Amino acid sequence: MTNQQIHLVSRPRGAASLENFALVEAPVPALGDGQVLVRHHYLSLDPYMRGRMDDAKSYAPPQPLNAVMLGGTVGEVVASRHVAYAAGDMVVGSGGWQQFSIVDAGKPGVLRKVDATHVPLQAYLGVVGMPGVTAWYGLTQICKPTPGKTIIVSAASGAVGGVVGQLARARGCRAVGIAGGADKCSYVLNELDFDACVDYKAHKDPKSLYAALKEATPDGVESSFENVGGPVMDAVMARMDAFGRVAACGMISGYDGEPIPMKDPMRIVKSRLTIVGFIVSEHMEFWPEALKELGARVTAGTLKYRESVAQGLEKAPEAFLGLLKGRNFGKQIVKLV
Amino acid sequence: MTNQQIHLVSRPRGAASLENFALVEAPVPALGDGQVLVRHHYLSLDPYMRGRMDDAKSYAPPQPLNAVMLGGTVGEVVASRHVAYAAGDMVVGSGGWQQFSIVDAGKPGVLRKVDATHVPLQAYLGVVGMPGVTAWYGLTQICKPTPGKTIIVSAASGAVGGVVGQLARARGCRAVGIAGGADKCSYVLNELDFDACVDYKAHKDPKSLYAALKEATPDGVESSFENVGGPVMDAVMARMDAFGRVAACGMISGYDGEPIPMKDPMRIVKSRLTIVGFIVSEHMEFWPEALKELGARVTAGTLKYRESVAQGLEKAPEAFLGLLKGRNFGKQIVKLV
Repeated sequence: MTNQQIHLVSRPRGAASLENFALVEAPVPALGDGQVLVRHHYLSLDPYMRGRMDDAKSYAPPQPLNAVMLGGTVGEVVASRHVAYAAGDMVVGSGGWQQFSIVDAGKPGVLRKVDATHVPLQAYLGVVGMPGVTAWYGLTQICKPTPGKTIIVSAASGAVGGVVGQLARARGCRAVGIAGGADKCSYVLNELDFDACVDYKAHKDPKSLYAALKEATPDGVESSFENVGGPVMDAVMARMDAFGRVAACGMISGYDGEPIPMKDPMRIVKSRLTIVGFIVSEHMEFWPEALKELGARVTAGTLKYRESVAQGLEKAPEAFLGLLKGRNFGKQIVKLV
Repeated sequence: MTNQQIHLVSRPRGAASLENFALVEAPVPALGDGQVLVRHHYLSLDPYMRGRMDDAKSYAPPQPLNAVMLGGTVGEVVASRHVAYAAGDMVVGSGGWQQFSIVDAGKPGVLRKVDATHVPLQAYLGVVGMPGVTAWYGLTQICKPTPGKTIIVSAASGAVGGVVGQLARARGCRAVGIAGGADKCSYVLNELDFDACVDYKAHKDPKSLYAALKEATPDGVESSFENVGGPVMDAVMARMDAFGRVAACGMISGYDGEPIPMKDPMRIVKSRLTIVGFIVSEHMEFWPEALKELGARVTAGTLKYRESVAQGLEKAPEAFLGLLKGRNFGKQIVKLV
């Protein structure tokens, strides 16, 4: 049996490009004892992957060269030599950018059986998966929003941002999104039911962006869930209340090139802000509680989400590069089956 | 009786200059009921004053134009119409840049009697005053250093930084200072007994500064007490351990002109940092405990400090401008009597 894979074959110099990736065919090895063969139905594409393409110090080691791109997957067990799994089981794991993966199923945390009847399988890569838990954790453990107060969410139509705003609204907060383009803003406002949404692409000038944000947050801003960085973050920082809290989840605007500075860090002192960077995989103790709420809300239809679906493994690099440029709309996944 | 005062007469455009200040003479009014007349012995000059010279949103309202510059003072009660004070009492307060002040002594927090026998009077403006408590608060409530771990302190020879490092050492930590010039570094190392000190002026290039800091912190950096901002802060951020804590006290390098950016804020996420901005006057509940430790250590001779003393009220503006450029060495005060 042949397994198609996407390898990282070179590291980006500046922006990532298609040439950094290659489609490779490899045989599927025989299963060892305790192993499970998973056929991937969907791959997850996530902003954090860009950081791992660089050979730089970060919270995780770099993605190795000439190896399968790492990443989350959902799929079906097609063969098992582990007692806890059987063919037909639907599972979420970290199979990477390939059609099949072989998993040492006994290792803790590498594979989890999921119920794909009440929740669509691919949602375990998004709203009921890592991005959803990221939203839940940053909101409840860092932003700690007070009912009636305002939270700003950047990349508000994205896999994380969309969940942050809806969970905040469910807790009685005023959720103000920032997104790129009229379509995304309309979706954030009308589908995700945020209280307001600012289109940063319509405000290229920092003063204009600040003015729009000010209009959208007349009562100030208690907390911010930061996914973007750069001028968007600068504008948000200038709107924060005294003692405001910022959950720093990511700064995608600077991933694909030089770091983008924070214009006026003295605001941290002036507004006595608390900024907390976090990585959700380091807080596994919160996942059960988070997944319970997220799953229940998706089942009940009170947590909405949207997916950009690329068709076929060979489209993964292009879809990933589009994600870095904000061309996706909601959670970016790749459909393999 | 005539009272000499320094007024703010214009707001800086860019860097502050002598022209922003004027020496003014005014009569001392008669004392009202409940009021106290204080003759100032020393004025405090502090970096925060620069922010108040601008007409910009911050944690405190701007310094009014054509009014006495605000600021901390120590002095002697020369006349009293308040039952709790008598002529001869030594007091610390916020009398501003002038020879005398009249204080509504019944208002909470405006005046405090001090013991000037065990602790020199002017120390209540520094090591046993606002700067000392700032150091104590940021260290114990934000940096929360673990014995054996490393803390970096910028402006380490200054009124705040010098106290941070000594208190950290007393708690079993490794204290690494950053200061400008060989004299200051020698003082930090040999007098204040820090474990290491990096001279940022000897490392104009960011890579060189980072390398020096790396050499001084071979076991990483658990926390940082940030007084400076700019390239110094950038270098410190790059040295922080995962889950490191940064007490953001001030960023003096950017006070006297355009804000200086933080070069790579994504480090907050990558290293999962917590950065907390604070203003010590908002945490009055900690002052008694802090002042108790600071006073005891000064009395015991285990907390050292240094003062730059300008002579005469008319020298206050020049001394203040020097402070913004790092020309002071230790706590900057002005001697009036």
